Amino acid sequence: MSECPAPLSFGQIEEARARLAGRVHETAVLTSETLDARAGAHLYFKCEIFQKGGAFKARGATNAVFALTEEQARAGVATHSSGNHAAALARAARLRGIPAYIVMPDNTPEVKRAAVRRQGAQIRYCAPTLAAREAAAAELVKGTGATLVHPFDNLFVMAGAGTVAAEFLAQVPQLEALLAPVGGGGLISGSAVAVRALKPGMRVIGVEPSGADDAARSFHSGTLQPMPDPHTIADGLRGALAPSTFAEIRRGVDDILTVTDEAIVAAMRELWEVLKVIVEPSGAVPYAALRTGRDELRGRHVGIILSGGNLDLERLPWQASG
Amino acid sequence: MSECPAPLSFGQIEEARARLAGRVHETAVLTSETLDARAGAHLYFKCEIFQKGGAFKARGATNAVFALTEEQARAGVATHSSGNHAAALARAARLRGIPAYIVMPDNTPEVKRAAVRRQGAQIRYCAPTLAAREAAAAELVKGTGATLVHPFDNLFVMAGAGTVAAEFLAQVPQLEALLAPVGGGGLISGSAVAVRALKPGMRVIGVEPSGADDAARSFHSGTLQPMPDPHTIADGLRGALAPSTFAEIRRGVDDILTVTDEAIVAAMRELWEVLKVIVEPSGAVPYAALRTGRDELRGRHVGIILSGGNLDLERLPWQASG
Repeated sequence: MSECPAPLSFGQIEEARARLAGRVHETAVLTSETLDARAGAHLYFKCEIFQKGGAFKARGATNAVFALTEEQARAGVATHSSGNHAAALARAARLRGIPAYIVMPDNTPEVKRAAVRRQGAQIRYCAPTLAAREAAAAELVKGTGATLVHPFDNLFVMAGAGTVAAEFLAQVPQLEALLAPVGGGGLISGSAVAVRALKPGMRVIGVEPSGADDAARSFHSGTLQPMPDPHTIADGLRGALAPSTFAEIRRGVDDILTVTDEAIVAAMRELWEVLKVIVEPSGAVPYAALRTGRDELRGRHVGIILSGGNLDLERLPWQASG
Repeated sequence: MSECPAPLSFGQIEEARARLAGRVHETAVLTSETLDARAGAHLYFKCEIFQKGGAFKARGATNAVFALTEEQARAGVATHSSGNHAAALARAARLRGIPAYIVMPDNTPEVKRAAVRRQGAQIRYCAPTLAAREAAAAELVKGTGATLVHPFDNLFVMAGAGTVAAEFLAQVPQLEALLAPVGGGGLISGSAVAVRALKPGMRVIGVEPSGADDAARSFHSGTLQPMPDPHTIADGLRGALAPSTFAEIRRGVDDILTVTDEAIVAAMRELWEVLKVIVEPSGAVPYAALRTGRDELRGRHVGIILSGGNLDLERLPWQASG
């Protein structure tokens, strides 16, 4: 991270698209008259839940891995993450035939460990704090020479994420607004850069859980705000913005909205029931902001990114515990 | 029903495709390297779960309704069904602006009643026996002049169902086999006629629950067998073949396999977890026959119809009751 991060360019997103061809899915777009009627708008759902590994993260990780020089690649890649990015980076490394080192907190659920192990990555466990994760990753990089690929604070990862919006606009040129979830800000940053280049009049709106609202507070105050104690069911969106993603958000995002966990669960259930797709809480966040209608989007063609579909099917958030 | 039913022709399926254009979805096809590896074949999943109303039934019902003459149409349509066909017929009637009369057993769950009511259909309740349903429907037809549209024993309904296979082959010309679920036999009949016309060398395989195996017994014995007491979680497949669908199956289907409820639930869960789609038990039946591999399909390009995705999300079959 630098004080004045280099901006992401649309050229980097175009390079990412070329690099990703044949390595990740071009994902389907679904529509529903029922949901259109509820929201009072024409909705288009970009199904990154159908992406390799069940989340858009495959795009950024694969772009970062295949952008490495031969020499860099030989030493492998590393990250500290327990979520979709770790499995995506492990898969990309396997595709390129290079080592992947993943630092995970020792309380990571077995299902997430297994997803990374299946891709042949080497897992190193650490204490479940950000400091311990960063220290373990730094030590790993020092010992192996591997390239650290941050889950969002990385131009190649942001450029890969930006290919979602570029692909979406090629599929649905009539889009007038795009809604994406905001956690660390990689997806919304890439989306904003792609949209500004391809269709400058279009609105780009980020949505985040009200229990992890650092991006909304940062956007509205103009100063990067911390998120010391996030509380939300949307586990993929608990992270805070980096200076690099905050800079892109200030340059190219029109608004950042927040939604309650109650609205997220209701949105998730509607998407399951009506669209017949498995969306995780984080992936349902943008639709949560729209499902009861929003005046400024009424009658518009609105694109919604369903960012991921990985969750535990044993217990669903609308089921009473017991 | 007649002793010697008129065969379904491919021309009727082509007419159905033209009639359905713009009235039902052309549904997406999904693929998964993970499921390919497990099955040892190239799998293509035709997502009729994304069809209007969440099931392929929209095709047959819409074809039947729009094939009516103006005079027939004015008197409306009727059926006795509590499932996906009733809601599909109600929607098609609403699209054409004609009345729909639905006979339902008085123990029909509220969620299914609501789906039919939402489409503006008139519901008549009766005792929960097949005899009572048929009597109520006959009385209704006599009183209103409505056309009875049977859920499968109807050439327009079978032709509409056949458009799934025709559309699938246009999307994935390399298909070498097609697997479809078998309940009353409308979908497999239409599939067989479409495949024989478009790609005669291709295999057409029906799959049904072992607890409702009348089609397998009929197919292997050469004589239509009754299904007096079906027991299966796949509630859409409890019905028995009609003479018309049995005749098509004998003419054009290569084999009928059976799967246990345990295999159906395991298949359903894999489809949810890996493909990220909501498939109901009946819709998971064909994949249940394939998921651990089948020698005669090894290495082949195999199409699988995910026929529907309507179920109660409160309790999932892999969750312990409590």
